[in-house]
Parts: sequence; structure tokens; C-alpha cells
Amino acid sequence: MKINGQHYRTVWMAEDGRTVEILDQTKLPFELETIQLTSMKLAATAIREMWVRGAPLIGAVAAYGMALGMKEDPSDENLTACYDVLIDTRPTAINLKWALDRVNRHLSKIAPTEREQAAYKLAAEIADEDVKLCEQIGEHGLAIIKKIAANKPAGSVVNVLTHCNAGWLATVDWGTAISPIYKAHEAGINIHVWVDETRPRNQGLLTAFELGSHGVPHTLIADNAGGHLMQHGEVDLCIVGTDRTTANGDVCNKIGTYLKALAAYDNDVPFYVALPSPTIDFTVFDGVNEIPIEQRSGEEQSHVYGVDADGQCRWVNTAPKGTQCGNYAFDVTPARYVTGLITERGVCEASEEALSELFADLKQPTYV
Amino acid sequence: MKINGQHYRTVWMAEDGRTVEILDQTKLPFELETIQLTSMKLAATAIREMWVRGAPLIGAVAAYGMALGMKEDPSDENLTACYDVLIDTRPTAINLKWALDRVNRHLSKIAPTEREQAAYKLAAEIADEDVKLCEQIGEHGLAIIKKIAANKPAGSVVNVLTHCNAGWLATVDWGTAISPIYKAHEAGINIHVWVDETRPRNQGLLTAFELGSHGVPHTLIADNAGGHLMQHGEVDLCIVGTDRTTANGDVCNKIGTYLKALAAYDNDVPFYVALPSPTIDFTVFDGVNEIPIEQRSGEEQSHVYGVDADGQCRWVNTAPKGTQCGNYAFDVTPARYVTGLITERGVCEASEEALSELFADLKQPTYV
Repeated sequence: MKINGQHYRTVWMAEDGRTVEILDQTKLPFELETIQLTSMKLAATAIREMWVRGAPLIGAVAAYGMALGMKEDPSDENLTACYDVLIDTRPTAINLKWALDRVNRHLSKIAPTEREQAAYKLAAEIADEDVKLCEQIGEHGLAIIKKIAANKPAGSVVNVLTHCNAGWLATVDWGTAISPIYKAHEAGINIHVWVDETRPRNQGLLTAFELGSHGVPHTLIADNAGGHLMQHGEVDLCIVGTDRTTANGDVCNKIGTYLKALAAYDNDVPFYVALPSPTIDFTVFDGVNEIPIEQRSGEEQSHVYGVDADGQCRWVNTAPKGTQCGNYAFDVTPARYVTGLITERGVCEASEEALSELFADLKQPTYV
Repeated sequence: MKINGQHYRTVWMAEDGRTVEILDQTKLPFELETIQLTSMKLAATAIREMWVRGAPLIGAVAAYGMALGMKEDPSDENLTACYDVLIDTRPTAINLKWALDRVNRHLSKIAPTEREQAAYKLAAEIADEDVKLCEQIGEHGLAIIKKIAANKPAGSVVNVLTHCNAGWLATVDWGTAISPIYKAHEAGINIHVWVDETRPRNQGLLTAFELGSHGVPHTLIADNAGGHLMQHGEVDLCIVGTDRTTANGDVCNKIGTYLKALAAYDNDVPFYVALPSPTIDFTVFDGVNEIPIEQRSGEEQSHVYGVDADGQCRWVNTAPKGTQCGNYAFDVTPARYVTGLITERGVCEASEEALSELFADLKQPTYV
């Protein structure tokens, strides 16, 4: 999508055809900086340190990380070593494993001398596919928004609440949860987005940044506010992304998603989850008890990044000295609170039956 | 309670017997500063600008504000004028109206020449009563915590989640929701508090500060985290305060309280609300639709206060330039999600029947 009128993706190849470039998302929304990933280790750092984030984008950058690794040493030993380093960068998003397994399987079958070229080609395919999946999600989500708009007086504002950033910055382009919003905006629907700040890492600021850059009306709110807004009819629907969706439709997403789903359920507000199929983990059937939830540094809770009165970007520590901070990165929303899953193949119920039917061909381990 | 071993209240009389002193809560938890309130207008500013906050403390400072007003001019005209200025400072907390009505009724009946002295005396009584009510709430809440502790293996940690600051800093002393926690800690129960950060104004930092100052184990968490913790058995009970409780037990409290109540309900975690009776509004029967919810400046959402790397306190703007921010200060938790109300007279169901029975004498307009 666009920033200052220029089209960007979140990850792309540098002119040398080997270096991978990304937007440094830790500097956004204040500074627009590009980082060059010249090695597999740097790609791993980019994922671990959240220079890139968002399940689909993590998958794409991991695939490029494998390519960088093959450039360095295409041996069988290094193929395994690269996989092991990259798989350990983040524990929750299933796309990471999906992309790495796909690249690993492909490269294992071919001679080391051909691996570098094949890996770059496959990483580019994974990135391009992600763009396509996200745009399809946008089209299917648009149909839902159109229906809601049609049930309101003509020209009324359609209010969508979203949590975290599942926009184009979390994918290669378009986004998952935000893709239908871009489509609705382009279709002339009078759409307005309630943007959850999404503590502790404030990914809502990325959502505000990308919506603002694209001209979509939005209001930044505290994560605490959504329930009140839903009680007062100020939210027509919720759309969020997901880092892992179980075979039965439980949704693991940014911490706090579950609370919004409960409020939506309590107030009869439709709660949709947008996801490309690589986010589905067909091996897990109980999200709350089986998905490992990443715990990150307490500093992410206590320290906040912003612009001071002199225009300088700074970190400030908001917590009293010596305060212990907990930092759980994700939670799981049970399928019973999810109105529907917006996938690249259409919208389905969050249930084992519906997912099995829509993705029958993907349920095999050979689904790549 | 204590800070650095010294006992404090949140509001007290200066040595001159006329000036009112408060802790500047906008500087906490980083700096401990006292502000002298020398006029009614300054007392109004203290409430409006949240130098003091918390429903019970607002009531006490408003009463002292009336006394400062009577010191300036004890006429009938000024009595009305002071009431009008002070009542307009914050719209949601009912204690403000309760305290102002009480002072106004009392002063209206006596001669202007006696009003100054009578007003100071009544304000001191209101402050002292608040301390007593809060300590009684602590005793009744302690019984609940003891029961929960008794149902766990001996010496187990009892985990309490709280939202916002309903500690001694929100009252004159002891606090409401935190009072039972202090009592449990003093009783030797192995208590640990999950402290919600409470965006956008981060009152959870005050809770972390006062618990830390008193030596109560606690962990600061994002407002988003509570649902996940409850899903995983990490919360034994929730206790929160309230700014206004309706005749039927709906609870208006800091924005986000409702979301925690929903999560508690979904996970069978007891959800208690601690309140002194002046917080009950016997005239309102539908919290969601009848209680006015204060909307505050969007800057409270975008701007965060903390200590930078050089140890200097600063505000930083976290939002992308030009971002519109929404800032709803409170929400309403319907009575059906409240396990019980912890009052100075004991614990009761959140229902019209139970409140009517426990506070039959207060339901008349002459309840002072």
C-alpha cells in the first residue's frame, strides 16, 4: 500500500538480487527506515527483535532468511542449521513453521549447487502468494461490510473495531484484517476504524499510521474502550487477524483479542477473524491449552516509545522503579466467540467441520 | 498508608489550619510532591485536572473546596457559586455530588458567620469517615480472601487482579479495592496482585507504586492480559473499585472494567466490587444507559509520561502525527457480571433487593 503516495511492500529484494530489504517497523510510525538483511542471522534477528512482525510477514522473511543462508553455505548441514535458527525466533505464529517447512522440503530434494537460486525463487513466490491471499481476503471481507452497510441508512458510517496490526505492515501487502477495510474504503463505503492501541507494544500505532497514510478515517483508542463502544452501538463489526488458528477454529492472536471477542458476543456485534490458510494449524484442536504463548521481556510493558516535546524520539520508563512486569504476547479466543473466519477461499464458520470442508486439500501434511 | 516508612493521607490540613494539602498524583509514581490548595478555585482545578482522583478522594477534596470557598466569602450567593463550580469538575463519580450536597445542606442551615468553621469541621469529618469506611471494607474483603486461601493448599499464592487505582491514593487512606489486599497481606496471606496498567492514564502505576511502597508482591500487566491469565487459572479473584454503583448493582468504573468482568464470568473467577456507600446512586437503575460517561482529551491517550534514559521525567507523544484519539474515561459493568459488592456494612449481591436491604436507611434523600 502507499506511504506518502509511494507504493511499498514490507519486504523486497535489493538491486543486487541477493540482499533482502525490509521496513524497520520498530521505528514506525515516526521514522521510515529500510534495513538491509545480508545474512541468515540478520533475518533471524529481524524476526526475533520484531523489526518485522505479523504472522504472514514473519513467514515471508523466514523464507528469505533460508535463501540468505543458502547463499552463505548451501550444504545439507547448513540447511538444517538455518532451519533450526529461524524456527526458534518466535514461538507462536504458525506461518513461520509453515514457510520454513515448505522451503526446507523443497531444498532438501535438490542439489546444494542449485539451492541458492531455488531458495530465492521460492521466497519470492511465498511473498507474492501472500499478497494474492490477502487481496482475496479483502474481497470476501468486503462482502460482509457491504451487507452491514446495506442494513444501515444510506451513507451511514460503518464502524469497524480492530486490535493490533493486521494490516499491510503485518503481511507483504494489503493485510489480513485491514484488507477488507481498504477494499470497502475504495468501494466508497463510509468506513471508520476504531484502532485499539494494543499494549504493550502499541501495534495499533502502526494501524493508525497505515490507515492514515492511505486516507482511511480512524480513531485511536485505549484497549480498554472497546467494550463501552460496543455497549453503545458504536461498533458495527470487529475484524482481527490471527497468528495461529486451530483445526476447530480457536484463534490465537495478539493479547487482548479474547476480551474484545467477549464484549462483541455480549453485545451481538459480529466478530470476524481474517486469515490466510497458512495460519491454520490442523494439528491443534484446543487452542487455550495447546498453543504455546510467548512471554516477552517486561521492558516492553514498562518502556514506551514516542516523540518528546522537542521532536526527538525517545523511550520512557513508565513504571515505578523496580516494578516487576508481566508480558504475555498472545491469547486464545475460543471458536464459540468467533462469528466467522474470512479466508482467501471465502468466509466460513469457526468450526472443525467448516474448516475441514473449505480446506480439505490442505489437511494433509503434503499440503504445500 | 506508608511511603518510605512515613504515614501519609492523600489530603490533610496544613499547619495554618486553613490551607488544604494534597499529594500531586500527576507526578506519581516518579516524584512525591505536595500541593497547597489555598482557594476554592484551586480545589476545583485539583479535581478537574486530576491532581487528585478516585471517587472517595474527589468527594473529600470537594468538601474541603467548599470550606476554602467559605473562608473566602461565606455568603449565600457564594455558597451556591462554590457548589456550582465544584459539581462541574467531573461528571461521573457520584461521591462528588454526595459530598457537596451534604456540605451544602449543612451550611445552608447556619449563619454565614459560622460557615467557615463548620465547613472545615464537616470536611474533616467526611475525610475521617472515609478512612473508617475503607478500613471496614478491608475487613469484609479480607473474609473473602481468607476463604479463597483456605480452599488452596496451605501457603499457596492467592492471585488478585485489580484495574485502575482503587487503593489508598484514590481515597483518604486504605483504599477500597486494595484495602482487603492490605488486610490480607498484614494477616500473613501469601497474596500477589496482577496490576492492570489502566490506559490511557496509567493509574495502574499508582497501584504498583502504593503496593510496592507497602511491600505487597505484585506484577504490572497490560490491560489486555487479564483474560489470558484467567483462562489459565492465574487469577483467584478480581477486586475493583467503582465511581458510581446504581440502585440495581450496575457498576460504573474505570474504562476497561467491563472487559475484565466478562473474562471473569467466562472463566468462573469471582469478580468483586469494593465500595463505600456514598458511591451508591439510588436514583439510577440502568447504568449503561443512564450514567454519563466522561470523555476526556485525546492527548491523554496519545501522550505518555515516564522517565527517560537520563532520568528525566518527560511526556512523549506515541501516536502518528495528526491521529485522532478517543478517550472514554469509564464504562459500566452490568450487575449480572458482579459476584458481590464489598461495602462497609458487609458483602452483598449486586442487586436492587440486596442493596435495598443493606442500605434501607440510606435510600431516603435525607440519608446524611
